[in-house]
Amino acid sequence: MNYLQLYESIRGKRSFLCVGLDTEIEKIPAFLKKEKDPVFEFNKRIIDATHKYAVAYKPNVAFYESNGSSGWTTLEATVRYLKKKHPEILVIADAKRGDIGNTSKMYAKAFLDNLPFDALTVAPYMGEDSVAPFLSYPEKWVVLLALTSNKGADDFQYHNEDGIKLFERVLTVSQKWGTIDNLMYVVGATRAEMLKDIRKIVPEHFLLVPGVGAQGGSLAEVAKYGLNSKCGLLVNSSRGIIFADSTENFDKVAGEKARELQIEMEQYLSERNLI
Amino acid sequence: MNYLQLYESIRGKRSFLCVGLDTEIEKIPAFLKKEKDPVFEFNKRIIDATHKYAVAYKPNVAFYESNGSSGWTTLEATVRYLKKKHPEILVIADAKRGDIGNTSKMYAKAFLDNLPFDALTVAPYMGEDSVAPFLSYPEKWVVLLALTSNKGADDFQYHNEDGIKLFERVLTVSQKWGTIDNLMYVVGATRAEMLKDIRKIVPEHFLLVPGVGAQGGSLAEVAKYGLNSKCGLLVNSSRGIIFADSTENFDKVAGEKARELQIEMEQYLSERNLI
Repeated sequence: MNYLQLYESIRGKRSFLCVGLDTEIEKIPAFLKKEKDPVFEFNKRIIDATHKYAVAYKPNVAFYESNGSSGWTTLEATVRYLKKKHPEILVIADAKRGDIGNTSKMYAKAFLDNLPFDALTVAPYMGEDSVAPFLSYPEKWVVLLALTSNKGADDFQYHNEDGIKLFERVLTVSQKWGTIDNLMYVVGATRAEMLKDIRKIVPEHFLLVPGVGAQGGSLAEVAKYGLNSKCGLLVNSSRGIIFADSTENFDKVAGEKARELQIEMEQYLSERNLI
Repeated sequence: MNYLQLYESIRGKRSFLCVGLDTEIEKIPAFLKKEKDPVFEFNKRIIDATHKYAVAYKPNVAFYESNGSSGWTTLEATVRYLKKKHPEILVIADAKRGDIGNTSKMYAKAFLDNLPFDALTVAPYMGEDSVAPFLSYPEKWVVLLALTSNKGADDFQYHNEDGIKLFERVLTVSQKWGTIDNLMYVVGATRAEMLKDIRKIVPEHFLLVPGVGAQGGSLAEVAKYGLNSKCGLLVNSSRGIIFADSTENFDKVAGEKARELQIEMEQYLSERNLI
């Protein structure tokens, strides 16, 4: 999937919602525990209930890896189910990987070759050769960490050289590594006002914005400062959708929560004449 | 394992060698391919042949993850074999993880709780709350990336604020997060001369030094600038040991290569009166 195809998908669904599949086994409804793979069953029902309102899904790999090899089996089943049923949906592995070149190549193989992920999140600390192997897959994306939504973002991301903060340097330097068709950035929603300055550095790139909802970010603010002429935003919501209800109706409620966000997003897209 | 126990292990084996289990299935001897789990069989034989000369092993998780859930099964079998046969050896998951707090907690569970790893490598970009969950396990270690051995280290790690480079800031700031008993740092050997300045910032901490051998670093230089009063070094060699030979004698040759490094290390430890 390239930049324009992603924009077309957003226009079609009148939504720029990414649903975070951060599925903690302890938090899923009790009645699912009898299933052979309760986490996959949970994910499947969430996907079935929300796919009309979402242009992307983002399983965070940590929640699967915490169950070891069987967690990886669940992750594999989830991404395969998603891409088989909804090939037009962007599926992002939130993996935050990054290593020396020949090792990043192995991570790229794991997520973009063996598995049908369309994208994965990558940490920038080790620089270009740690990111390049992920960019060599056609139609696949790197989502590079720039400004994260957690408190620890203050520790290093604001480190300032001659007025240029580290996350700004990440945005500026890494633009040369890829294109708007294979590179997007993570920008935390808890700092929505920063999007104004970030859009000066990366006016065209898609930004993946986590932290709306449970982490305190405002969708209205994100849309105000982040939308560009091709939308240019994917806004992630995880706990606010997938764990909104813990009864047998959890999937129905998840669908309603996703629908609420889609309606709000449609309004912002409409105000900007993007749909 | 704490700081002094690690030093005692080094004194006992007269070695500060870490063997990198970066086991690419394409590179293992053909005759092992008939085994049920060829990579585990390879690792097992490498461990049996080298454990006398090594105080640590470091499987890089990427090489296992590239085989999906079955790769994870191999990783699990490898670390369990190591800790069962050699509980005194430090086993480091080279995972370079790091995410927001509640997610890093999941990675910590994956490596330090479900699996018997003693340590894992963590990327610093997301700051304190992304690292803290790994530090809450007693007797376990975080190995934080500071200065890496790849070319991309130049892109951001040297970003300079008022004369303080990013990797120096990582060393300075993160020292407050842990102690010399649960925190060590990755410092690439291809920049051995940097160890002189790094030792001014972290005189006591253990440093994990990759990049000796295949990546071009010199063990003599690393020892010269990096050794401290409790050794304070773990030097990793991977390809130079595990893929030194591709015949049925591969394990014997790996043992010889590990032994050569151990003898050289013994000399440096002896010169400094550390043994």
